[in-house]
Amino acid sequence: MISKGFAASKIHPSAIERVWIQMKVVKVSDQVKFKSEKMNKVSLFDSDRFFCDVYCLEPGQAQKVHAHEGSDKIYYLLEGKGRITVGSQEKELQAGDITLAPSGDVHGVVNHTGDPLVMLVFMAPKPQ
Amino acid sequence: MISKGFAASKIHPSAIERVWIQMKVVKVSDQVKFKSEKMNKVSLFDSDRFFCDVYCLEPGQAQKVHAHEGSDKIYYLLEGKGRITVGSQEKELQAGDITLAPSGDVHGVVNHTGDPLVMLVFMAPKPQ
Repeated sequence: MISKGFAASKIHPSAIERVWIQMKVVKVSDQVKFKSEKMNKVSLFDSDRFFCDVYCLEPGQAQKVHAHEGSDKIYYLLEGKGRITVGSQEKELQAGDITLAPSGDVHGVVNHTGDPLVMLVFMAPKPQ
Repeated sequence: MISKGFAASKIHPSAIERVWIQMKVVKVSDQVKFKSEKMNKVSLFDSDRFFCDVYCLEPGQAQKVHAHEGSDKIYYLLEGKGRITVGSQEKELQAGDITLAPSGDVHGVVNHTGDPLVMLVFMAPKPQ
């Protein structure tokens, strides 16, 4: 009868085992912290399947152009402007813009402005 | 000599093959569109590894509580407020808040307010 009950409710039984886990809600602006020496990455969520970080760049700071085979990355700009490279292209993005760096493509960002740059960043799957 | 050149620049050779691909930049607010009959999902990026969507909910609209084993989902609220369920918990989130629905945990959202609700949603990996 119990297994029928689970099936009827369309809730996977394993979900029942997880009810003790606290739902984590983060106010992203509370996590924004800059470092004078280099761009600061603040981890919001680090699951088995992806990273979700906030990148905080003071004027002049950058994430060097790099690539990782097998993982895609999303950049979503929360505050400020930045020059983002994906593959052979570089574009200026501003708050509210989003872009994708596909697996294997070189990518990076520089805060070329005089104001802070804050971005939400997702990468999946986690690089091996 | 060519292969040494690639190694020295730390750019994976496969990136060179992809230089023709256009870098896609999306202004998220341009993609926000509501449907009167139900919550509207607008796809921003659909890679082999994840979905990135904008969910647009008019007052009273909802994404029913559901679960998918093997994929994690992120909700980031761009505009408005919503009641989000993860596992056995429900919390009111507002613009600037972010939360994670881990693989297998039931989750859903309802716009219980009189104002529009807009969310950025990531799910990885794509459900099979």
